[in-house]
Amino acid sequence: ARPRVGYYYTGKTGGTLFNEHMKKLTVQEFQSIPVVINDSASVYDAICTMFLEDVGTLFVVKQDSILIGIVSRKDLLRASMGKQDLESVPVSIIMTRMPNITTCKQEDPILEVAHKLISKQIDGVPVVRERTVNDQTVHEVIGRITKTNITKAFVHLAKDELHD
Amino acid sequence: ARPRVGYYYTGKTGGTLFNEHMKKLTVQEFQSIPVVINDSASVYDAICTMFLEDVGTLFVVKQDSILIGIVSRKDLLRASMGKQDLESVPVSIIMTRMPNITTCKQEDPILEVAHKLISKQIDGVPVVRERTVNDQTVHEVIGRITKTNITKAFVHLAKDELHD
Repeated sequence: ARPRVGYYYTGKTGGTLFNEHMKKLTVQEFQSIPVVINDSASVYDAICTMFLEDVGTLFVVKQDSILIGIVSRKDLLRASMGKQDLESVPVSIIMTRMPNITTCKQEDPILEVAHKLISKQIDGVPVVRERTVNDQTVHEVIGRITKTNITKAFVHLAKDELHD
Repeated sequence: ARPRVGYYYTGKTGGTLFNEHMKKLTVQEFQSIPVVINDSASVYDAICTMFLEDVGTLFVVKQDSILIGIVSRKDLLRASMGKQDLESVPVSIIMTRMPNITTCKQEDPILEVAHKLISKQIDGVPVVRERTVNDQTVHEVIGRITKTNITKAFVHLAKDELHD
């Protein structure tokens, strides 16, 4: 018989319910707009773009937003410590290249991305959509997830649960 | 009468319980070791320290770990775009000074720090302990919390709840 108070045991604890809720938070809900530069840009251009857009990671693309590399604030700071002329060094020299880039998809749980950021010790990942061009699989950049988005998800979780 | 299944309504929903759990996660549990430099160090020293220690924020201190400023990867990158000699510019010229620094305490909920990071658009805060020196209140640096620590707390929450 069900208890008369109107609540009954579903076999799920608060913890399990919460965990299921957490897994429903997807990349799509928290992603930011990607900030990209062309692969022909210089290291100096990249630094300027980073400041203008106020981001810590830039995605390097060729035509049609196809991801070919990624460059972090750290990469640019390292380059600026050298003796080279930053305007003559192309960003493609210092970027990390595909396929050595960790990516995610819009439908991935945000929790999965949080795991990747921690285990790979990176600050952000591009959100990509696979496309086939001339029988080759390419990755179109459609968003970004950084530790800022994860921090927002963390704050959101607390707010969300307050109101249910 | 209490339902016979052994569960009964406490007046708290899963959400409320979870929220209380989240508030119990404090800075102390997630903080990292602070990375500090002396206020007499140059901008060049600061960049090197940042790479050696692999952090995005340095705390600038005078004797006895007393916090006087903070310098981010972004501040250093901006400085390195200029025409100055990085070895001759002291870091105290480009740092953000107390009292314009957001700090936290060991006993603060990590959620409160997450809110500060988002609302002030910063990457990390020093964990401080107040001390009185010559009738003045000073802040001793004892840790740091960055978006990396928040991301770890987020991952921890999911793991934690899985096992209860």
